[in-house]
Amino acid sequence: MEKPARNWASKREQKAQTMKKIEHLLDGKYVPTEAIIEVLETVIQPGDKVVLEGDNQKQASFLSKSLEQVNTDKVNQLHMIMSSISRPEHLTIFEKGIAAKIDFSYAGAQSTRVAQMIEDGTMKLGDIHTYLELYGRLFVDLIPNVVLVAADKADKQGNLYTGYNTEETPTIVEAAAFKDGIVIVQVNEVVDELPRVDIPSDWIDIVVLADQPYQLEALFTRDPQNITELQILMAMMALKGIYAEHEVQSLNHGIGFNTAAIELLLPTYGETLGIKGKVAKNWVLNPHPTMIPAIESGWVESIHSFGGEVGMEKYIAARPDVFFVGKDGTMRSNRALSQTAGQYAVDMFIGSTLQLDYEGNSSTVTKGRLSGFGGAPNMGHNPGGRRHSTPAWQSLRDEKDPLGKGQKLVVQMVETYSSNKKPVFVETLDALDVQKQAGLANAPVMIYSDDTTHIVTEEGIAYLYKATSKEQKQAAIAAIGGVTPLGMTSTKESLDELRAAGIVKLPEDLGIKRSDAKRSLLAAQTVDDLIEWSDGLYQPPMKFRTWS
Amino acid sequence: MEKPARNWASKREQKAQTMKKIEHLLDGKYVPTEAIIEVLETVIQPGDKVVLEGDNQKQASFLSKSLEQVNTDKVNQLHMIMSSISRPEHLTIFEKGIAAKIDFSYAGAQSTRVAQMIEDGTMKLGDIHTYLELYGRLFVDLIPNVVLVAADKADKQGNLYTGYNTEETPTIVEAAAFKDGIVIVQVNEVVDELPRVDIPSDWIDIVVLADQPYQLEALFTRDPQNITELQILMAMMALKGIYAEHEVQSLNHGIGFNTAAIELLLPTYGETLGIKGKVAKNWVLNPHPTMIPAIESGWVESIHSFGGEVGMEKYIAARPDVFFVGKDGTMRSNRALSQTAGQYAVDMFIGSTLQLDYEGNSSTVTKGRLSGFGGAPNMGHNPGGRRHSTPAWQSLRDEKDPLGKGQKLVVQMVETYSSNKKPVFVETLDALDVQKQAGLANAPVMIYSDDTTHIVTEEGIAYLYKATSKEQKQAAIAAIGGVTPLGMTSTKESLDELRAAGIVKLPEDLGIKRSDAKRSLLAAQTVDDLIEWSDGLYQPPMKFRTWS
Repeated sequence: MEKPARNWASKREQKAQTMKKIEHLLDGKYVPTEAIIEVLETVIQPGDKVVLEGDNQKQASFLSKSLEQVNTDKVNQLHMIMSSISRPEHLTIFEKGIAAKIDFSYAGAQSTRVAQMIEDGTMKLGDIHTYLELYGRLFVDLIPNVVLVAADKADKQGNLYTGYNTEETPTIVEAAAFKDGIVIVQVNEVVDELPRVDIPSDWIDIVVLADQPYQLEALFTRDPQNITELQILMAMMALKGIYAEHEVQSLNHGIGFNTAAIELLLPTYGETLGIKGKVAKNWVLNPHPTMIPAIESGWVESIHSFGGEVGMEKYIAARPDVFFVGKDGTMRSNRALSQTAGQYAVDMFIGSTLQLDYEGNSSTVTKGRLSGFGGAPNMGHNPGGRRHSTPAWQSLRDEKDPLGKGQKLVVQMVETYSSNKKPVFVETLDALDVQKQAGLANAPVMIYSDDTTHIVTEEGIAYLYKATSKEQKQAAIAAIGGVTPLGMTSTKESLDELRAAGIVKLPEDLGIKRSDAKRSLLAAQTVDDLIEWSDGLYQPPMKFRTWS
Repeated sequence: MEKPARNWASKREQKAQTMKKIEHLLDGKYVPTEAIIEVLETVIQPGDKVVLEGDNQKQASFLSKSLEQVNTDKVNQLHMIMSSISRPEHLTIFEKGIAAKIDFSYAGAQSTRVAQMIEDGTMKLGDIHTYLELYGRLFVDLIPNVVLVAADKADKQGNLYTGYNTEETPTIVEAAAFKDGIVIVQVNEVVDELPRVDIPSDWIDIVVLADQPYQLEALFTRDPQNITELQILMAMMALKGIYAEHEVQSLNHGIGFNTAAIELLLPTYGETLGIKGKVAKNWVLNPHPTMIPAIESGWVESIHSFGGEVGMEKYIAARPDVFFVGKDGTMRSNRALSQTAGQYAVDMFIGSTLQLDYEGNSSTVTKGRLSGFGGAPNMGHNPGGRRHSTPAWQSLRDEKDPLGKGQKLVVQMVETYSSNKKPVFVETLDALDVQKQAGLANAPVMIYSDDTTHIVTEEGIAYLYKATSKEQKQAAIAAIGGVTPLGMTSTKESLDELRAAGIVKLPEDLGIKRSDAKRSLLAAQTVDDLIEWSDGLYQPPMKFRTWS
């Protein structure tokens, strides 16, 4: 037995030394707002792995703005880990040399700039992840040295209230707090008594009162005014041909007008189908305002949320039977648990996409934009680790295979031509070009054909899971491809065959008249209507208000 | 807009009423130990969904023993949700009618009795789950009314220290605390000041000092004395033919002597392969005592753990650079996060099984025993939602497919004949019989053939992911099937072809001499050796001590 001498607490000792260096700035766990740059320059070492909380909605904006201002002689070459690249300074830190490498999940508004910076070498890409795999790596091979997070309130001891927009804060903090990393949190407010403690002060090293509240984006609000009759037609087909057909009890809706239309049809068209109380009961979902009429009409048993949505605070607080709300009366979100539930515990994921190839692979990465994955692939795949069954899951079982099991419904809803007049069906995904451009190991496919069970267009539904060959799958997509190049390859003979086999259903096969798809079917036609449904509890942000 | 009148806070009101009924028993959040049965009889309503913390290791044994004693006129027909059915009273409550229905993950020692009770209708089965899907359902369609959990210590306010064996406690508590469920926790000790707060008192309703500490099982300890030379041979093959071959950097090991042998060969045989610092660096793993020599020899960068292991407390506390340890100096485990990491963030899962069919599907369910799934399928499948790549992951990519991606290594290690002298390869899994017997929707397969990339036996390694047809896969398994009925179907011609294609490797193909597989290769040959490696910090439970 040869044992090299080794210090087994090197990270702990380094942390103690680092904290000693800012001792003169600390009052308990607090540092003065104006001292934050000095604090960051002292506690962050060159090359450190740093998690900067850029959530889907909540941004640690005070800390990111401060990080942008550090002296690059002191802080440089950082390896950033961020679930969302959202703010300009998230990229400026790379231009300045403060950071060198990035591992991320989602780039959203910064996706063009991210692609550019990777191409020109300003930013070295670790990899692009889904949320859950990025969280997983925080405990495996991307263990952070420093984490910079945001909370609503802290008490004098440094206990945190993260409340409504808890999102991923506890997950990030846990990875650092239990591996001798340094946890720095910006708070909007310091109070004597918290509404409730969400994260214990024992997990926190440094608290700083931010100069202004953290940035929070309303990402999940869709104004019913902008829902088209084509989207209403597709929503009717989805409700009858998928929700009712498969008895979908639990589900996630992606962001977008297609699914917003479904939400607003539940209390109207859905009611006429007689499926209330049988389908769409248990949701994993951000609090979409367009869910209000369905909730008020008694469709919804429960909603667990990844994060919050601006304006929904009071409404949610008044509906604790539906939402996850703490003793103090405010919502608790949790992105890691909600993604886990969305992967393993729901019958269906339904969302939109920007491109689908002829086999049914889809991507939201289009030329020059490296938008990343977010959480959609966690929910939009058939979870190989799932073992329990539900009616919807079981309805997709291959009965000929004695070891067969059910399958998750993964549904893509697209109009055959996108808003920029380009066909949504393409021979080759732009993702392949972006892969080369950014030097990615694999093409950034959002949802693979193998996982996609249904595609809905304004022409009909393709039940892809019933196709027995690649060719039949492509024919089914072509059959609902309208006048796109792919759609034009479909023949009447092929369509008839596919309809006879139940692989394709047109509106008439579902007993739906195109002329019935009217805006008057929407339970709410404006944001005002949503407010009214909510008894005035929903308070939309200014940009969604049409009145002065 | 028609809106039915509705109380949107019915659960909250019911909870307030219930808590009022035990007001006379409460001192802050505390109830007297001897009042627990009265408390349970008052707060649990007939038919309630109740989570009883039966973890993999930690058991809320005081609460389960108390639940067994409630008056069945008051408490009955409960719907139990338990990740592990471990203790006799977990089943007695069904015999008494206190509980009627069960959703669970793992049955372990009680698996025969569980199968029996389902068959005779004493226990109505909801479904059998993996850990992550059961946790997910706590936030979707199995939202609990009451949860009964265990913690080490509480302070006067009811803040909890769950420390070393945190396991799934925070996940269960979160599901109830934020949906107006009632959280009851048994604690081993009440203290003035906690080592650290793991769960804030705001999430807790009722605390009770248990009559004795919670039950805690040592499940992951394997005595090196019992490792055979056949297991050492297989471990050598795995290390050279899989770990080194694919550059496996991050991984999970299942429980068992096969993987314990690998752990004990890292500092000896592994050293000779020159792969130290390149492979097996980042682990998701319970703190196996057989990991000590590899840790001490500098192989291991990090270990994140689902739970603890009895006897490893002091050793872990002294190795914070490797394990996840809090500021207070004790480990933090977290089953939900560790399973997420094990699913999404590691290169490889490797474990043993009881039966493999000729296609490579495996099951640990054997006649009359309904053992459930635990966490193995979460880690032992190719995660369809993963998007980042690593060398090992990428080494399994199909390079001909432009939209191809990497794959997780899922390795099964089995001796061709099990300890009961039966062939491990069977034409039909017992799981199919058990499916019928217990009325399951699908056969309880632990790991599917589609996910299994390698099988290791004492005869060689089958690289199943390279097989291009079902027939070739079966031939590859037969080629390493020894003198089992399946193995006897293999011909020299087939073996030669498979070796030429690199689909099968025998020890000689890997440059391994069978005669080199000696017990002297083990870095520790006894539990004493492990203690010595640990500088006396490892303190095994009595049953693993060979001295008096």
